[in-house]
Amino acid sequence: MPLAATLQSGDALVIVDVQNDFLPAGALPVPRATEILPVLRDYAARFERRRLPVLVVRDWHPAKHASFRSRGGAWAEHCIQFSTGAEAPPVLELPPGAITFSTGTEVTDESASAFANPGFEAKLKTLRVRRLFVGGLCAEYGVFETVRDARQRGFEVFLLRDAMRALNLRPDAGSRVEGEMIRLGAVPLNAVDLCQREPAASALLTDLFEVGMLRAYFDAGMKDTAVFEFAARRLPPGRNFLVAAGLEQVLQFLEELHFNDWEIEWLDRTRRFSPDFLAWLRGLRFTGDVDAMPEGTLFFPHEPVLRVTAPIAEAQLVETRLTNLVHYSTLVASKAVRAVLAAAGRPLVDVGLRRAHGAEAAVLAARACYLAGFSATSNALAAQHYGIPAAGTTARSFVEAAVSEEDAFRRLAHSDPSDLVLLIDTYDAVAAARTVVRLAPELRAEGITIQGVRLESGDLARQARRVRPLLDEGGLRGVKILASGNLDEIAVAQLVRSGAPIDGFALGSRVVTAADGPYLECDYKLQRYEGRRRTHRAEGETTWPGVKQVFRERNAAGGFDCDVVALADEAHQGEPLLLPVMRGGRRSGLGESLATLRDRVVRGMESIPPRLRALESAEPYPVFMSERLHTECVAAGIFPACEVPPVSPPVPIPPAVPAAPIGACLAS
Amino acid sequence: MPLAATLQSGDALVIVDVQNDFLPAGALPVPRATEILPVLRDYAARFERRRLPVLVVRDWHPAKHASFRSRGGAWAEHCIQFSTGAEAPPVLELPPGAITFSTGTEVTDESASAFANPGFEAKLKTLRVRRLFVGGLCAEYGVFETVRDARQRGFEVFLLRDAMRALNLRPDAGSRVEGEMIRLGAVPLNAVDLCQREPAASALLTDLFEVGMLRAYFDAGMKDTAVFEFAARRLPPGRNFLVAAGLEQVLQFLEELHFNDWEIEWLDRTRRFSPDFLAWLRGLRFTGDVDAMPEGTLFFPHEPVLRVTAPIAEAQLVETRLTNLVHYSTLVASKAVRAVLAAAGRPLVDVGLRRAHGAEAAVLAARACYLAGFSATSNALAAQHYGIPAAGTTARSFVEAAVSEEDAFRRLAHSDPSDLVLLIDTYDAVAAARTVVRLAPELRAEGITIQGVRLESGDLARQARRVRPLLDEGGLRGVKILASGNLDEIAVAQLVRSGAPIDGFALGSRVVTAADGPYLECDYKLQRYEGRRRTHRAEGETTWPGVKQVFRERNAAGGFDCDVVALADEAHQGEPLLLPVMRGGRRSGLGESLATLRDRVVRGMESIPPRLRALESAEPYPVFMSERLHTECVAAGIFPACEVPPVSPPVPIPPAVPAAPIGACLAS
Repeated sequence: MPLAATLQSGDALVIVDVQNDFLPAGALPVPRATEILPVLRDYAARFERRRLPVLVVRDWHPAKHASFRSRGGAWAEHCIQFSTGAEAPPVLELPPGAITFSTGTEVTDESASAFANPGFEAKLKTLRVRRLFVGGLCAEYGVFETVRDARQRGFEVFLLRDAMRALNLRPDAGSRVEGEMIRLGAVPLNAVDLCQREPAASALLTDLFEVGMLRAYFDAGMKDTAVFEFAARRLPPGRNFLVAAGLEQVLQFLEELHFNDWEIEWLDRTRRFSPDFLAWLRGLRFTGDVDAMPEGTLFFPHEPVLRVTAPIAEAQLVETRLTNLVHYSTLVASKAVRAVLAAAGRPLVDVGLRRAHGAEAAVLAARACYLAGFSATSNALAAQHYGIPAAGTTARSFVEAAVSEEDAFRRLAHSDPSDLVLLIDTYDAVAAARTVVRLAPELRAEGITIQGVRLESGDLARQARRVRPLLDEGGLRGVKILASGNLDEIAVAQLVRSGAPIDGFALGSRVVTAADGPYLECDYKLQRYEGRRRTHRAEGETTWPGVKQVFRERNAAGGFDCDVVALADEAHQGEPLLLPVMRGGRRSGLGESLATLRDRVVRGMESIPPRLRALESAEPYPVFMSERLHTECVAAGIFPACEVPPVSPPVPIPPAVPAAPIGACLAS
Repeated sequence: MPLAATLQSGDALVIVDVQNDFLPAGALPVPRATEILPVLRDYAARFERRRLPVLVVRDWHPAKHASFRSRGGAWAEHCIQFSTGAEAPPVLELPPGAITFSTGTEVTDESASAFANPGFEAKLKTLRVRRLFVGGLCAEYGVFETVRDARQRGFEVFLLRDAMRALNLRPDAGSRVEGEMIRLGAVPLNAVDLCQREPAASALLTDLFEVGMLRAYFDAGMKDTAVFEFAARRLPPGRNFLVAAGLEQVLQFLEELHFNDWEIEWLDRTRRFSPDFLAWLRGLRFTGDVDAMPEGTLFFPHEPVLRVTAPIAEAQLVETRLTNLVHYSTLVASKAVRAVLAAAGRPLVDVGLRRAHGAEAAVLAARACYLAGFSATSNALAAQHYGIPAAGTTARSFVEAAVSEEDAFRRLAHSDPSDLVLLIDTYDAVAAARTVVRLAPELRAEGITIQGVRLESGDLARQARRVRPLLDEGGLRGVKILASGNLDEIAVAQLVRSGAPIDGFALGSRVVTAADGPYLECDYKLQRYEGRRRTHRAEGETTWPGVKQVFRERNAAGGFDCDVVALADEAHQGEPLLLPVMRGGRRSGLGESLATLRDRVVRGMESIPPRLRALESAEPYPVFMSERLHTECVAAGIFPACEVPPVSPPVPIPPAVPAAPIGACLAS
């Protein structure tokens, strides 16, 4: 297995003989050598940023070097010590920390390998270098000899293909020597390969068995169109509905999906895949159709949220990441909307970054929370990426590091006068509230208004009740009290119901991990292949058959009355929820703004039966199946297993196993 | 707020006038123009991969064009229709889908703007383009006029600074025109900015309030050394210990940490930060020290796992991401090791990618599971990235898509004869087992051995008990039975205890989300600043004061006897657990291999008191504090709050609130 091309400790960049004499105006010009200069500059900048060594090897010849024609050698005079021709071109912008090693410094010293200079290997040892990333000029001489010697000494070597050029005295010399270096175990690489090693961008972010299934489809010549649907099997405990989210990320994933050379090479090295298959896989793109509920749509178990129609290999390959994306955003949006309900109009801020499960989760959670109705996020990247308002106060450490709490408050006020929220329970909230009152006139005189105070531990309601009168009596009626500290919708509902004078909440861990139900029972299931219905009837796990559409019917007042799950080719009354969003691998329309999605959630919440807005499980929303879907179910032999009475349309889907109430919560 | 530079639907690349006549050998050479060719080629490849439009604008002049000197104009004859000089250089490798627009096609038509060709704007409309990424030649003419007109029409414009060059008839023409384009609202960009938008690589993956605190430290001139420690406050329910993980990721994060131009620009646009502060932030790197427990170390609440010693701004800034990384890997490793205990030697495979919380979680979870003793992962990227063995069978869809189950099994056997595990409960496990028995001799004749069968739904023990005899009677004693389907350590323990003939387990959702406790109570807390102890005593949340070390004492048999938390400058018997891993922002040693980490977990499990290997809560492992730490606690006024008797050393830490047992599990 090769190591991945993410840069890591032990890596070093080796730039070989990039000197003026090998450039167009020089003594020994290498064809197209200028092309590699900006590429190498970028490599060097990247290593420098990581504080990894940049090692520069140079020809550094005495004027009477034995390799020169004047001395019976093969070459024009070049790279003479201290000459302009021996200098590196300024456009290379070598970082200040680059270390230079000279070769060919003696008259008879003709080796072009960096290892010919003993200081080079000694430095590699000192710096604990294990992997060399080698580029430069010329591929057949300095680069080749350095790579050869590095491999002999057991270093891993990456060839920077886009940062080397051959002299090509024989036209095929460059490609021959590249093949030879690969034979010696060097791994070819382009700058773009280094860019793409982030998990989310890799086509390898899939279960390897998906690739195995693609190989089996390929070997069997199975190329027909398949239809897969993604649906939730049941609601997590206490939930009454789910909020669709993650579609934007899915469409982006489908647009970008491809295996790059590096990924194909890794698959090749697993020895599980034939060259034919890998060549086919290299060209694979997603060319299919997607129909989906727009993000922010409220939905229920058994209802397909997203449908993929594509050649079976494409539709299969996307299963893993598509599920990963829809699952998590939907999970968090469905959790966050409960907190929005519980807060009854008070603003909520996402502060989940520290305990979200990794980087992508944190960013997607901030988006899902905002979509569900949160007001802001503390996550700077999510704010940048999605334009979500950023908010947040300070951590205890600032107060602790200051000379006194009062000093900390004053410094914060001066540092960010525009948005001043002070954390007051580092030591004693009541004492800190008195400090705030004492400080306020002084700050007001400077034009600074304290916007709020924050409590993050202990009995928040009690603390807020003690702090509020102090603030009010101190003339700070406008100062809001914000609360945080492992809160979830249940805690928010209790605080709201208690009448505690809390004006807003910051929610983190429990929302972004959906702590009371951190995953959804959901599946991406094959529904049709070669025009035939596909279903299975495994013990305890059954899929509704057929390619489906969901119709939402409204009552006279405009509220949601019921949903009917029908076959996709049926006409039915009500609003179809699955809309075309991608055709032939391209999006059918522009993406929706987050404002649109937020609005859809708000309208959905207004339109569902009020009992479903409770935090505990309520009588389920009515979801029916159409007569034709019912007939399909009977034909597929589903009903005996599921004990649905074969009544006439619309046929009620049996309710999921009722979840236990999670305690007294908000009144609905 | 600017949109981020991630490519998205509605983006288009516009390459202006990159033609032979503007290159060194051409009629009107632009200085250093060849440097941009490989850069533009990479941009084009990137847009092509995303299937975003690549639009090529070219000068396409009649031979008697009014701009030519021969006709009284200012320029040498150039880019004459159908001449070699008007062609794009082959090294640009324009993708096949690139669309070309000609300008200056009439004798008197002198505008160099792409919008001078009406087809250009019409195409932008058809393709629903909203953002133009513009590069090419020359900055002052074609590029500038195109950017100006695009801004006038309301398009967002990104200037590809590393892919444009100016003619510079006046030496400063290029920089002046760049300033002018920025004034018009164009946003400058380099290729590396497009590379770095992955969440994990961005310095903005932090709470914005951390940057706000840095600003306050900066404004207050607070530059002294701070010491922060990361520790868990309590164990999740049912756990008896935690497994340290995520250090490798933390060190990589600290090595790479920096704000790039793009991120600084975004911070600038929030209008919260002064230019002075941002200039300082631009140069900020992590230069501090880290001491940490090696990954795979078993640890307990109150024990610092990781300690950062650095100038306070650096130590503060890293809080968010460091916590995010250590928290998640430790969470999963601590969950996964329980499954390893429950499986009692049977191999475990991570299949959590689909329901892990995003891409990074999936990859880190695969690593944490392997570290804790799993045998393999289904996650191809984790396999590639960390060299973890890859494993996995097929999904139901392959069986459903095939003509018959037997046909599906046969195709899979032929497609991957080396590692054949068949999913047998798509329809009926018993029938499928009979099919396997029937098929085995045929496959054996072809040299193919069935390695195993997999069950993933229903009553796994019952199914396994029905299938095992069928396989045995069919001569397939060597075929293993694997089980999967929302299993966790409790389910595994029950299956093992039931004696069900199951040889291995695939675990997903419940392990990678740590479903019974999806976050840890843990904190990164300031312990010292300016040489003084810092602590706070908030209601219900107290930190042990001082900079600390953990000493692990062993009994005569080599087992872990107890831990003593002491001050870092104390000598104490036992093995110190926090080791130097980074000094001055550079790693102190090579990273450890995953094999080393796995081995450390195994040795830890062998060495802890056996009662702690149970799946339910046991009598806690004894963790004491040293006399000096005890004195610190008294001095800091901690004890009254915590009700620890002030007895002589070592002083027992009061046990955490005992967690409820999670039911009868494995005997310890």
